[in-house]
Amino acid sequence: MKILIVGGNGTIGKKVKESLQDHHEIITAGRNSGDIHVDISDKNSIRKMFEQLKTVDACICTAGTGFYGDYYSMTEEDMLPGIKGKLIGQMNLVLIGKDFLSREGSFTLTSGIAAEHPAKNGTAVAMINGAINSFVLASAQELKNDLRINAVSPGLVEDSFERYKGLFPGYNLAPMNKVVNAYILSTEGGVNGKILKVYS
Amino acid sequence: MKILIVGGNGTIGKKVKESLQDHHEIITAGRNSGDIHVDISDKNSIRKMFEQLKTVDACICTAGTGFYGDYYSMTEEDMLPGIKGKLIGQMNLVLIGKDFLSREGSFTLTSGIAAEHPAKNGTAVAMINGAINSFVLASAQELKNDLRINAVSPGLVEDSFERYKGLFPGYNLAPMNKVVNAYILSTEGGVNGKILKVYS
Repeated sequence: MKILIVGGNGTIGKKVKESLQDHHEIITAGRNSGDIHVDISDKNSIRKMFEQLKTVDACICTAGTGFYGDYYSMTEEDMLPGIKGKLIGQMNLVLIGKDFLSREGSFTLTSGIAAEHPAKNGTAVAMINGAINSFVLASAQELKNDLRINAVSPGLVEDSFERYKGLFPGYNLAPMNKVVNAYILSTEGGVNGKILKVYS
Repeated sequence: MKILIVGGNGTIGKKVKESLQDHHEIITAGRNSGDIHVDISDKNSIRKMFEQLKTVDACICTAGTGFYGDYYSMTEEDMLPGIKGKLIGQMNLVLIGKDFLSREGSFTLTSGIAAEHPAKNGTAVAMINGAINSFVLASAQELKNDLRINAVSPGLVEDSFERYKGLFPGYNLAPMNKVVNAYILSTEGGVNGKILKVYS
């Protein structure tokens, strides 16, 4: 398969790439790195990327983050970059990308544990994750040409522990191999409309 | 209690008002109707409303809708009014309103069945409902001064049947008295951080 990984040089994306690259053609995309550049907060940039690629068999997105910070001083402006990127950006990957995916292709988006177990100071991220999960449920019943769509919802991933440990006290670590497996299950398996939760 | 109902003249809001008005002081707010005017898609309008009210004991929001329409031609632009209104608008009611609520006050937002059972052509609404649910879960652990927050997630409400029946084939009707009860439970009860689902 020709697999596009948006965020393919990020913490999760690079492990997904490592796992898939022996058996597939991988194209990584990122704002400042990767085989092709894309800013997912800009729908024109997304369209340009797909037009360059012409067609892909699977689109995985591991890009996008959101605001972490004090709830009492948080404003709409703090939340907007995450809404434009991880939320609208991932939705646009699907709404635009669906016309470029091969028959029986798949989308795999990334939400996260915060959708149902929000961390303190992480309300903006929780909200985005909840939105992505419901977007995936809804999109699965709309996509034609046997396209599939799933969300991987990881817990605090092992490789992010040093960076984020202060933000998630008491959260169990999600092993990288299980996180990567969820992306493989979505891409190579037959699941559709699932929230693949990698936490317990 | 002094209870603000944003959307108090809408299908659900007016029934909530009827049920609460004998025992509480009700202020209805709406874009073009109500005791006070507010455009929840404009944070300055929300702030102005709360500054006029000075303080309220409970804030209920039954306002806001989202895009219904063909998935394959849906764009970011179709989704933006709902994102600005029902999603960011309801979040701003909390983020701004929390500084005006009395101690032990409450917020009750409105999501909907589509968060987990999306209707065809209703992906934009499903996404917003999922976002609101997770926002409520997260906000409940952040709010101070013993403030509470819940979401009412109604199914297709009886009083909307004629208007929306074509959009929700096979959805059971949510009885208005049960929908209203969920708002009362959130406002007068002790529940916090709950998604009060009025569907089965």
